[in-house]
Amino acid sequence: MSALASLKERIAECKRLTEALSVVHWDMETYMPPGGAESRAEQLAVLQRLAHTLFTSDEVGNLLEASLAETSDLPYDHDDAAHLRVIKRTYDREVKVPSDLVAEEAKTTALAHEEWKKARKQNDYKLFQPWLEKIVDIERKITEHRGYKETLYDGMLDVFEPGMTTAEVERIFTQFREGLVELVKQIRESGVEVDNSVMFRKYDVEKQKLVTNDVVGRIGFDFNHGRQDIAVHPFCTSFSSLDVRITTRFDENYLPGSVFASMHEAGHAMYEQGFPREFLGTMLADGASLGFHESQSRMWENQVGRSREFISYYLPELKKFFPESLSDVEVEQFYKAANKVQPSLIRVEADEVTYNLHIMLRFEIEKAMVAGTVNFSELPEIWNSKMEEYLGIRPDKDANGVLQDVHWSGGTIGYFPTYSLGNLIAAQLWEKAESEMPDLRRNIAQGEFQPLLGWLRKNVHAHGSKYLPSELVQKITGSPIDANVCLKYLRTKYSEIYNLD
Amino acid sequence: MSALASLKERIAECKRLTEALSVVHWDMETYMPPGGAESRAEQLAVLQRLAHTLFTSDEVGNLLEASLAETSDLPYDHDDAAHLRVIKRTYDREVKVPSDLVAEEAKTTALAHEEWKKARKQNDYKLFQPWLEKIVDIERKITEHRGYKETLYDGMLDVFEPGMTTAEVERIFTQFREGLVELVKQIRESGVEVDNSVMFRKYDVEKQKLVTNDVVGRIGFDFNHGRQDIAVHPFCTSFSSLDVRITTRFDENYLPGSVFASMHEAGHAMYEQGFPREFLGTMLADGASLGFHESQSRMWENQVGRSREFISYYLPELKKFFPESLSDVEVEQFYKAANKVQPSLIRVEADEVTYNLHIMLRFEIEKAMVAGTVNFSELPEIWNSKMEEYLGIRPDKDANGVLQDVHWSGGTIGYFPTYSLGNLIAAQLWEKAESEMPDLRRNIAQGEFQPLLGWLRKNVHAHGSKYLPSELVQKITGSPIDANVCLKYLRTKYSEIYNLD
Repeated sequence: MSALASLKERIAECKRLTEALSVVHWDMETYMPPGGAESRAEQLAVLQRLAHTLFTSDEVGNLLEASLAETSDLPYDHDDAAHLRVIKRTYDREVKVPSDLVAEEAKTTALAHEEWKKARKQNDYKLFQPWLEKIVDIERKITEHRGYKETLYDGMLDVFEPGMTTAEVERIFTQFREGLVELVKQIRESGVEVDNSVMFRKYDVEKQKLVTNDVVGRIGFDFNHGRQDIAVHPFCTSFSSLDVRITTRFDENYLPGSVFASMHEAGHAMYEQGFPREFLGTMLADGASLGFHESQSRMWENQVGRSREFISYYLPELKKFFPESLSDVEVEQFYKAANKVQPSLIRVEADEVTYNLHIMLRFEIEKAMVAGTVNFSELPEIWNSKMEEYLGIRPDKDANGVLQDVHWSGGTIGYFPTYSLGNLIAAQLWEKAESEMPDLRRNIAQGEFQPLLGWLRKNVHAHGSKYLPSELVQKITGSPIDANVCLKYLRTKYSEIYNLD
Repeated sequence: MSALASLKERIAECKRLTEALSVVHWDMETYMPPGGAESRAEQLAVLQRLAHTLFTSDEVGNLLEASLAETSDLPYDHDDAAHLRVIKRTYDREVKVPSDLVAEEAKTTALAHEEWKKARKQNDYKLFQPWLEKIVDIERKITEHRGYKETLYDGMLDVFEPGMTTAEVERIFTQFREGLVELVKQIRESGVEVDNSVMFRKYDVEKQKLVTNDVVGRIGFDFNHGRQDIAVHPFCTSFSSLDVRITTRFDENYLPGSVFASMHEAGHAMYEQGFPREFLGTMLADGASLGFHESQSRMWENQVGRSREFISYYLPELKKFFPESLSDVEVEQFYKAANKVQPSLIRVEADEVTYNLHIMLRFEIEKAMVAGTVNFSELPEIWNSKMEEYLGIRPDKDANGVLQDVHWSGGTIGYFPTYSLGNLIAAQLWEKAESEMPDLRRNIAQGEFQPLLGWLRKNVHAHGSKYLPSELVQKITGSPIDANVCLKYLRTKYSEIYNLD
């Protein structure tokens, strides 16, 4: 057997183990009874340690070197060459991290997650602060082992967005922020008040369950290879492209919280379901980056879900589920309500325009936490001040401020910027898709989503993680990541809604 | 660190890994979409191989020898001494099996399970036959590696019922069968016809969901450390004593299929939930044997659930859920309907008396399969003939005959006898519990289950797998396993229902 064939067997084993880890994680977020948390933390720690030990074994290292030698004349685009690049990039990074530290991270974050839930519920940041300090300390240690370009934050970012640097994000975000702040100002000064009260009418939870399954099925989520459940925080996780799970949640008095969240997660899921069959059991069965992953979720949520075309198609269906709450509602009214721009406290409920300012705030705070230039006890105050600076509003309590997001309790630091990068990539992909498919919006208005999904399958999903995100965005759109495209998309859409000139 | 402390760390790792395996298995049986089966088989194979490799490593072997030397003067009853006995017994058996064979077993059975479902649905034994042959072949190979007392079947039985032999089962079953056949004959000849039509009225499935959660909660299933879901076959699985899952199923026209199945699985679950906290992450957190496990499930299902006392307590509650179907029903009527003795085709729906004849049939067929003295193509005919011989009825189709049980598709051969052993142990424990708690039946009639549960916690659950089943039954009841106690219990109960003299 060639070194490459042996390596692929080892990698498949690692991949299957991480898939099993995802099952265990999914259960923790969906069905695990409260009393199960303690032993679950132990199980996750053991699996994480094993996955790390297996992947960073000398055997994998030796097979990797031999495989690279064997395949040195393969073209850059060849699946095996790309797979070896991904394996090498990850191996070189992870082999430097002690497995004990990986296990400690898994166990600490599983327990911290429970403490964070408690802290948020009790609106008591002090409960969570020691855990956050511990987690930042662990992540710093892990990143010290892994190595990084210029700053520790570079190293953290690189895990989620391969090849991206802090400086590059800062450059992109600076440009993006200027445009966003100007747009928010214009909207505020437009004098136009969008009435979104229709979204806060009564929507029976049992019917929302049916609606969310209905809508994701229509846009292309494959229920033979996936399912939707309920969780505190909507998420998507994959146990291979043959079994991709999404979750949603319900608020009887807020419809977008489930419908658009489900479309968002279905966007992630369709990316995972769309990887080529031959990528099964390989590290190519993955998104190009979390930014790319987010481009898929945000596109289905926003460019599709919050479009006039989609709403004109789907509102009649919604009315069948909720005749009492929606029979008097017009497409134009629902469209505007779904796109009301209004500075708000909670990121996941933010509109398309202000959303990115929430991300930028987190990016600034994360950089300071990682650099060690803030006192953790001051984080709530720093958060609140930045909210005033960026969005002009101040959280009423930490549960709606620094405690609102799940990420830090899970050890994911350096992840937030990928949300805004995802919005930028989504806008660029959407512009390209529209240019290649002039009927795109008309298709959507008619409930035909296969053209868009097919385009994404071919241009994005088919490549899995073969290319760096910077390579892939260039390959598809002919340009690097560029905030101007998203700004143009937002200006066009919201100028019309808010009568801007 | 002492060898024992190091060994315990390694064992905890193995235990956590098998717990994770159980999560992955549970998901396969409850929520996995159909298209996920293929990758799930790969995941299970990898986990099973890893669990086996870790547990049978030289490191564990060396630590085990050193630990035994360190602790040679510990008393037999000491937790550490017992733990080392369990580890050694399992290690000595499993170290002889190649990990590849374990992985092959996991993958084959995961795929065979899907094929069996298809075969049963299509009533086509030929579809399943090659898988069954393959599985028996794998199990024979594994047992050849493990070693056995006199016959291969001894080796298979020993995995589920440590210390038990085929000859001993035959001796016990011979005595048991004679008594059962005689009792069935007397019941048939009694001329009494029990009307159980009440069980086949209409019972709304949504309400059955509520009832099954209600009833298991009342008897003591801890929902903080467990949950109940729906599966094709009711089962119980444990992810540690802090998180124990049960499943049930619903038939709108058959109430016992859910209510008694849930009580049965809750019996298993309360055993698991009852292991001492200090057993967490050890191999002592396990039943003494599958027979002992089944004694718990059968006791809660039959000695409790199908007793006049329980029905007098719970029928009024049931009437609240199903007033249309039950308002006219008396306790006596429901009690008799729940205990109608009638030879039937399906084991899991059999009454307490004929149930064991189903087991004996499987025991005979399994022995022949393993000994290689039957042609697999003739199994349906052999099954059907034995059904006529043992129960006087002949299956109308293989789906109701040789294809009815899930076990063989999962590679569990040598497991069936533990069901009847469980019935025998349940009767012996029940007799002892009644002798020590004269109010036991009155407690149940008043809905007080804590006395019985507490007695089981103290006498059975607290020991986990510290003792061999033969030791434990002797320790609790003062006698070995003895079919006469169960026969006496059955004769007393059914003489009254069927007016036998």
